[in-house]
Amino acid sequence: MQAKIAILGATGAVGREFLRILGERGVAPEGLRLLASARSAGNTCTYCGQELSVEQVGPDSFTGVDVALFSAGAEVSREWAPVAIDAGARVVDNSSAFRMNDDVPLVVPEINAAAIGDARLIANPNCSTIIMNMAVWPLHSRHPVQRIVVSTYQAASGAGRRAMLELEGQTRDVLGGKPAKPDVFPVRCAFNLFSHNTPIDAQGYNTEEIKMVQETRKIFAQPDMAITATCIRVPVLRAHSETINLTFREPITAQEVREILLQAPGLTLMDDRENNRFPTPIDATGRDDCLVGRIRQDISQPDGRGIDLFICGDQLRKGAALNAVQIAEALISG
Amino acid sequence: MQAKIAILGATGAVGREFLRILGERGVAPEGLRLLASARSAGNTCTYCGQELSVEQVGPDSFTGVDVALFSAGAEVSREWAPVAIDAGARVVDNSSAFRMNDDVPLVVPEINAAAIGDARLIANPNCSTIIMNMAVWPLHSRHPVQRIVVSTYQAASGAGRRAMLELEGQTRDVLGGKPAKPDVFPVRCAFNLFSHNTPIDAQGYNTEEIKMVQETRKIFAQPDMAITATCIRVPVLRAHSETINLTFREPITAQEVREILLQAPGLTLMDDRENNRFPTPIDATGRDDCLVGRIRQDISQPDGRGIDLFICGDQLRKGAALNAVQIAEALISG
Repeated sequence: MQAKIAILGATGAVGREFLRILGERGVAPEGLRLLASARSAGNTCTYCGQELSVEQVGPDSFTGVDVALFSAGAEVSREWAPVAIDAGARVVDNSSAFRMNDDVPLVVPEINAAAIGDARLIANPNCSTIIMNMAVWPLHSRHPVQRIVVSTYQAASGAGRRAMLELEGQTRDVLGGKPAKPDVFPVRCAFNLFSHNTPIDAQGYNTEEIKMVQETRKIFAQPDMAITATCIRVPVLRAHSETINLTFREPITAQEVREILLQAPGLTLMDDRENNRFPTPIDATGRDDCLVGRIRQDISQPDGRGIDLFICGDQLRKGAALNAVQIAEALISG
Repeated sequence: MQAKIAILGATGAVGREFLRILGERGVAPEGLRLLASARSAGNTCTYCGQELSVEQVGPDSFTGVDVALFSAGAEVSREWAPVAIDAGARVVDNSSAFRMNDDVPLVVPEINAAAIGDARLIANPNCSTIIMNMAVWPLHSRHPVQRIVVSTYQAASGAGRRAMLELEGQTRDVLGGKPAKPDVFPVRCAFNLFSHNTPIDAQGYNTEEIKMVQETRKIFAQPDMAITATCIRVPVLRAHSETINLTFREPITAQEVREILLQAPGLTLMDDRENNRFPTPIDATGRDDCLVGRIRQDISQPDGRGIDLFICGDQLRKGAALNAVQIAEALISG
C-alpha cells in the first residue's frame, strides 16, 4: 500500500499501536505523517525501527494525505476532522465524536465494511463494543439474538497511556507500603476495580455502557436490540474481557455456537474444558484475534435459547488501532 | 459469650479472620482452641493481642468444645467433623463438603437462620454465593426474582493465603521484568484475570458457578430458581465483586429496589451517581457489610421487570469468617 497516511495522536497508546500495526502490515514509511497537539509535538515515535518526529497538527497537516487516522480524543477530532476532510483526506476517527451521527458509518470491517461506501469520515467503535461484537455478530447474523447481558473487565489502556503508567506506578506504591495516589482514575486502580468512571445518565447507565448499547445497535443495523451492559475497570494493562449472556430468538446449542465461532473471522477459540484453559487478557495481549471461550448452554434458560460465553481482546489492537487500520485498508483498496 | 470455641484451620486466611472477628465481637479467650494440620501445628496466631499456639488436630481436640469453626478444606472437614460432633461440639463448616447434604442446613443468618434448628453440623455457603444473596434475598423475599445472571470478579483470598501471597509476589516479579511463576493458580494472576479454575462439568459450568446456582436455590428454598453464573478470578486481594442482572416476576423500579436494600441487614448502599462513587473491593475490604450500588432499571427489559446492580463484599469477612461466626453466635445464644 502506497497511500499517504497521517496519524493524529501519534504519541498516545493507540497512536503507537497504529505505527506498530501499519509496520506489520507493510505500509510504506514515506507516506506517513505523525501529528499531535502542541504538547506532544517534537517527540519522536518508532516506526519499523526508524525514529519519526511528530509535528504539531495545523491547517496544512492534511495536504496530500489520503487517509488520516485520528486518536486524540473527541474534542480534537471535532476540531480537525473537518480540516482533514476539506484537504481531501478520508478520516478514520477513533473517538466518540461522530460515532452516532446518522451520516457517519460506524464500522467493524468483519461486520459492516459495506457501510463505508464513499464516506469521507468513518467512525471506529468503542473498544468494548468491538470486542463484544466480534463474538455476537457471527451468531446474530445466522441466529438472531434477542437480548444481550454483558459485563466487562476493562483494562487500563482504554483510558490511555497515562492510565497504564498509573496502574503500574500505583501497584509499585501499594507493594512498597506507600499510599496509592489516584490521578488519571478517580479511585485506586491497583489491586482494585471500579465502575467505569464516565458520567451516569438519568437511567443510571454510564457513558461506556450506553456506547455498547447504541453502537452495537448501529453496527448491527438493529435499532431496538435489547442490550444491558455493566462496565467495570480492572487492574489489567491492555486487554479487555467480557462475560456475555445471550438470549436467541430460537433454541441453539453450544455446539452450534462453537462451530460458528470457529469459522468467524478475527476470532480464535480457546475453549478447553478438560484442561480448564480459557481466554485471559495476557493471552489476548498483542494478538489481532479476539479469544473466545467458556461457550455453554445457559442453564437458566431451559428453553435452550440461552448461551453464555467469555471473550478477551487486545484493547489497543482490535479494540482500537487494528480495527481503524482495517478500515483504512478498505478505504485505500476500495 | 463464654462458650468454648475451637478453630480448625486457624493459620489460614479464613482462620486468621475468625480470630479477628471473634476478638472484635468479644468472645472470651479462655474458651478458644486453635487447631490445624500437622504441617501448621506449633505456629502461633494472634488473638486480641495475645499469641496463642496452634495444636495439631487429633481425636481429643474437641472435648468440651461447644462450637467448632472449620476452615481447612473439604477433605479435612470430612475427616474431623464427625469426630467433633461425636465429642459433643456443634460444627460450622466453611468447606463445600456438606453444603448440599439434605440434612445439613446451609445458612446465611440474615436469610435463613431458622434453618439451623438443632443441627449439629451447619454449612457456611460459598463466598460468592453469600455476597450475591445478601443483595438478592431482601428483594426476592418481597418481590420474587425469576432469573439471575451474575458475573463475578473474585479476589485471590478465595483460594487461600498462599494465593494472596502469590498475587503479590507475581506482581512484584512482573513489575521487575521477571517471569511470573504460577503456582497456586494455574495461570498468571498479576495484571491478568481468568475463568475460575475449578473443574468444568458436562454442561460447561465450573464448580464455583454451580455452587452459586445450587447453594442459592437451597438457601432461598427455591429448588428451581433460574440462575446462570460466570466466575472470574481478578487480581484483587480480598474482596469479591459481582455484577447482578435480575428479572423479577412483576415490574419493579430502581427506586423500590434502593429502598429495600437501604433497609436490608448487612448491606450498605454506595450508589452515588452524581459523584460516580460506587462500591470497590478496596472499600469493602475489612468491612462486615457488603456494599451495593449501580442500582438501575435494566433497559434491555422494557416491561420493567429487570434490575442491574453491583455488589462488593469482603471475601474473608461476610464471604467466609463473619458469616460462620454469625452462625456460631446463633448456636451459642439459641
